[in-house]
Amino acid sequence: MRPELLGLIYELLPETHSRPELQHFYSLLRDYPARGGKGLRSELLLLSARAHGVAEQSSQWQSALWLGAAIELFQNWVLIHDDIADDSEERRGQPALHRLHGLPLALNAGDALHAYMWAAVERAGVPGAMGEFLEMIHRTAEGQHLDLTWVASGEWQLSETDYLEMVRLKTAYYTVIVPLRLGALAAGTVPSPLFTPAGEALGAAFQIRDDVLNLLADAGGYGKEIGGDLLEGKRTLITLHWLSGAPPEQQRLFLHEMARPRGEKDPQMIARILDWLRESGSIDYAQRFADEQGADGLTELRRALMNVAQPETAAQILQLAEGYVTRRA
Amino acid sequence: MRPELLGLIYELLPETHSRPELQHFYSLLRDYPARGGKGLRSELLLLSARAHGVAEQSSQWQSALWLGAAIELFQNWVLIHDDIADDSEERRGQPALHRLHGLPLALNAGDALHAYMWAAVERAGVPGAMGEFLEMIHRTAEGQHLDLTWVASGEWQLSETDYLEMVRLKTAYYTVIVPLRLGALAAGTVPSPLFTPAGEALGAAFQIRDDVLNLLADAGGYGKEIGGDLLEGKRTLITLHWLSGAPPEQQRLFLHEMARPRGEKDPQMIARILDWLRESGSIDYAQRFADEQGADGLTELRRALMNVAQPETAAQILQLAEGYVTRRA
Repeated sequence: MRPELLGLIYELLPETHSRPELQHFYSLLRDYPARGGKGLRSELLLLSARAHGVAEQSSQWQSALWLGAAIELFQNWVLIHDDIADDSEERRGQPALHRLHGLPLALNAGDALHAYMWAAVERAGVPGAMGEFLEMIHRTAEGQHLDLTWVASGEWQLSETDYLEMVRLKTAYYTVIVPLRLGALAAGTVPSPLFTPAGEALGAAFQIRDDVLNLLADAGGYGKEIGGDLLEGKRTLITLHWLSGAPPEQQRLFLHEMARPRGEKDPQMIARILDWLRESGSIDYAQRFADEQGADGLTELRRALMNVAQPETAAQILQLAEGYVTRRA
Repeated sequence: MRPELLGLIYELLPETHSRPELQHFYSLLRDYPARGGKGLRSELLLLSARAHGVAEQSSQWQSALWLGAAIELFQNWVLIHDDIADDSEERRGQPALHRLHGLPLALNAGDALHAYMWAAVERAGVPGAMGEFLEMIHRTAEGQHLDLTWVASGEWQLSETDYLEMVRLKTAYYTVIVPLRLGALAAGTVPSPLFTPAGEALGAAFQIRDDVLNLLADAGGYGKEIGGDLLEGKRTLITLHWLSGAPPEQQRLFLHEMARPRGEKDPQMIARILDWLRESGSIDYAQRFADEQGADGLTELRRALMNVAQPETAAQILQLAEGYVTRRA
């Protein structure tokens, strides 16, 4: 994340309180932001603002920075709550917040950070931005519900279409579509309708790449535990593809293991499943699928950015989006 | 809650989706609102709007109704998350949302409802309202942190001042101060600064009465399990007062029981503690304390409302506030 965005987040979040318990509360709010996310989404937003004609140092740029801070705050409160829902162990290379402070305090800190996100949106003062954030949260929560309800109900009879609908909702809006749109709004222009199909494809590519990285043993900078998706019983393109063609005995063992709660999963069995997935070719299949989605998304995005005010910044956006499907962390 | 407010909430929340899982998600969003809260806070807000001169059927009244819907949505998402944090069993006479659908889905539904609250604030279009909601969430989350961190850390060395600071933050802002202020803002007037001290005292009285009701065996319309605060290890004025004068052996047994997680608490021991509390006079002490806070708050509130546009509505506000310390449910 750009240092000036972290600066705005720190400006917004309270820092000191005479009561030690509330001082502690404030430290929880700053924890995830201070761990230093990559800031991909705010970067995309800021590039989109520049491509649409916002000059650095202008008051529009300051508004775009506040929107960037808001989108990073969104990412952070969602991660706190997701880590609770999935009972994740790690986030950005450190223990998840609820593993440090217990579920109740982490849940509450996530709610407070959610409100500070709205404070950042208000500071931006960009007409239409509030509606974008509402749309983003609604779609992301719908995707999250699909993801979580399949886990909760043990549903594995899912098609690639089901998976794609889930990740478009869960990932594409907040990772691609809304950052691109917010950049246009910060410039006072109407966002291209092509941002939606472009972002759906690129968001799917981004999420599939994330699923791939979660299974690769050498994903150094990834920041979450390797194989965590298996422990959490996540539906991914990889597991769904593998499941459709796996030997019946492996299918049986897999479904049996996935039906156990996270805490009762057998590490040896998880290791065997990891081997099956890696040997099956399903990871390669998923990566190829991500590459195709990425290529489609880039084509749409190129069209969407054809007539923007600053074509050289548009090229930077395309470069950033291209990195979504090849990223290592 | 007024039927027209529930109508606005239903207008805002999505209803149908072709995917059964998302249809299910939408039913989770409507669950707590449909259980029919008392709507005290929105009622206070609407009375405050009328007292400050908003005429029913005016466009200002429509804005006040949207703010009322927003404050009820706040109450609902907070209750979903509080029930998770406390692992409560019941809410409004039915199982808590996470006990019906599991923690992950309930947590996510609470987040989505939080966003719909902001959508209602936006619909109201009242200048300054967004800042009031931000202030309300920040203070409530601070109070919630105090409450939860004392439970998590096993802290019982607390004074009445500690307790009062906690409930002023946790309860007073969203129950009294902010509804009163929002009513004034809906009328386009500057809220009286006396709303803050008035609301702090009345909010404390309201919360202490809530703590009393939680221990009374005959609280028919209360909607939460009797003695639930003990199971959740909540610090209340009653337990703190009792603890300061209880026989050492009872203190020891109490602290030992409170140190156990909710699921491992011994029902027989909880029943004995309930008897001790009821016999000790600490419930009466707390009720007298609530009465005093209530009286102080009413004095301040009367002064705050002295010069409002509609004095007869001011009288209704005082009547509603008076009920805060004598309510049965």
